Amino acid sequence: MIDIDRRTATLFTILAPFAATSAVAQTDHPHKIPDFGHGTARDMSKVPWMGSEEIAMLVYPGMTVMDLIGPHCMFGSLMGVKIHIVAKSLDPVTSDAGLTIVPDATFETCPQDLTVLFAPGGTDGTIAASNDADTLAFVADRGARAKYVTSVCSGSLILGAAGLLKGYKATSHWSCREALAGFGAIPTDARVVRDRNRITGAGVTSGLDFGLSMIAELRDQIYAECSQLMSEYDPHPPFNAGSIHTAPDDVKQAMIELAADFTRKAGSLAAAYKG
Amino acid sequence: MIDIDRRTATLFTILAPFAATSAVAQTDHPHKIPDFGHGTARDMSKVPWMGSEEIAMLVYPGMTVMDLIGPHCMFGSLMGVKIHIVAKSLDPVTSDAGLTIVPDATFETCPQDLTVLFAPGGTDGTIAASNDADTLAFVADRGARAKYVTSVCSGSLILGAAGLLKGYKATSHWSCREALAGFGAIPTDARVVRDRNRITGAGVTSGLDFGLSMIAELRDQIYAECSQLMSEYDPHPPFNAGSIHTAPDDVKQAMIELAADFTRKAGSLAAAYKG
Repeated sequence: MIDIDRRTATLFTILAPFAATSAVAQTDHPHKIPDFGHGTARDMSKVPWMGSEEIAMLVYPGMTVMDLIGPHCMFGSLMGVKIHIVAKSLDPVTSDAGLTIVPDATFETCPQDLTVLFAPGGTDGTIAASNDADTLAFVADRGARAKYVTSVCSGSLILGAAGLLKGYKATSHWSCREALAGFGAIPTDARVVRDRNRITGAGVTSGLDFGLSMIAELRDQIYAECSQLMSEYDPHPPFNAGSIHTAPDDVKQAMIELAADFTRKAGSLAAAYKG
Repeated sequence: MIDIDRRTATLFTILAPFAATSAVAQTDHPHKIPDFGHGTARDMSKVPWMGSEEIAMLVYPGMTVMDLIGPHCMFGSLMGVKIHIVAKSLDPVTSDAGLTIVPDATFETCPQDLTVLFAPGGTDGTIAASNDADTLAFVADRGARAKYVTSVCSGSLILGAAGLLKGYKATSHWSCREALAGFGAIPTDARVVRDRNRITGAGVTSGLDFGLSMIAELRDQIYAECSQLMSEYDPHPPFNAGSIHTAPDDVKQAMIELAADFTRKAGSLAAAYKG
C-alpha cells in the first residue's frame, strides 16, 4: 500500500496558508482578488486538497506497464490517497516489455471497499488474466462494491470477463475494442468513456487523460489542473499517428496486421464469455 | 536487462512478409502502390525494424516513475533493443509516489558502451542522486562514451552534476530548469531539447514526446509512427494547465509555491557545482 503521507504533510503545509490567504482575500478584500484572466476568480480554499481514497491497481505478468503508470502518475498526486498495487501474490511481476514491479497487496489483503478499482491492459498477459479464475473472482468482488470501476487499454477485457461491463458503454485499445460487445458492453470509440461508475480509457497512453479526468471526478477541476501542471502534461507528439483515425495508411495497415493475432484472441475470449 | 526477443520474433514474423510485399509491389506493380494520401508512398521494407541498441535507464530511490516509464514505453517497442534498468545494487527501488521496481543491472554490470544513457527525475531523491559520488561516477563514465546522453524532467540535474551538460542547451521540469545554468548548461524552454548528442525532455509526461523523438532518431519516422499508433498516443488532456505558459494563474501560483523548496534545493545543488 502506498500512503502519500510524507508528501501530503509537505503539500498540506504549503497549500494550507495559500488557501487560507485566498479565502480571506475573497471575504475581506474583494478588490484585491485578481481575475486571473479566466473569468470568475476561483476560491482555492474550497479545493478538496485532502482525501482518503482507497485505490486498487491490479498488476499481473505481461501487463503493459505504461497502462499502469499513466493513471498512477495522476492518482499519486492526490493528498491522503492510499494506492494498493495488487496481485495474486507479493512476488515481483514482469511487464510485457520486461520491467519488473513489486506488488504491495494480494487479492486477500486488498481492502474490501474501494474508491477505485483499476485494471491495466497488455496482450497475451491480459488474455491470461482474463481467463484466471482467482483474478476474475477478485475483480468481480471488489468491482461489485467499488465506487468506480476503471481500466486503461485492454484492461477492459478483464472487467468484461469479470462481468462488470454488461450494459455499459466502454472502450479499450483500438485492436480489441469491438471484442467488448461479447461481454455485453457497448464498444465506444473515445479516449475516455464514462457510463455511470464505469470509466474506461483507450490504448496505453490514454491513461494520462483518464487519470486527469479521475482527479477532477475524485476532487475537482482545480486539483486536476494542479496535477497537470506538476506533471507538465502539455503533450506535443512529434508525429500525428496516435489514432487509427489519424495514422498514415501504411502505418495503420502494418499495425493492424501486427495486432491481428491479439485481436483474434480477444475476440475468442469474449465469444467464450458466459455471463 | 530486458531483451525484447519474444516480442521481436513475433513482430518480425509479422512485419517481414508485409515489408517484402511492399518492396515487391514497388518493383513489379508500381500502379498498385497506393499513395496513402501522404504524398509519396513510403517503402516499408526500408524501415530499420531490427536493431541492437543498448539502452541504460538509471533508477534510484525517490525518482518519479512516470519519468522512467514514458520513455520506456517507447524504447520497449524497438525490436532487438536491450534495455538495462540500472541502480547501485539490485535491491528494489521505491519511487517518490511509492511504486517499487526491480533493477536488473548495477553500475558494475551495466555495459560499458551504450547507445543511450537515460536519467529520470524526481525531487529530493534526485538531489540525493546528484550528490552521490557513485551515481555521478557511473553517469560520467557511461555518458562519456554513450551515443546519446539523455534525461527527462529533473533527471537533467544528474547529468549536469556529472559534468555532462557544460556548454549544452538542455531542459528540465519548469521548477528547476534555470538551475541548469549552474552546471554550465544553457537552460532552454522546450518540450524536448537537442544539442548535439544531448537530448533532454521537460517535466514528467514529456517522456512520451522525448521517447517518440528518440525512436525516430534511433530508427526512423515510420517506426516512430508505428510505436505511436500501438501506444495510442493521441493525447486529449481534459484541461489546459500542463504548461507554465497555459495554466490558470491561480494554479500556477499555487504550484510554484509548492515547488519552491525543490527549486531552491536544485539551485543550491547547481551553485555548489565545481565542474
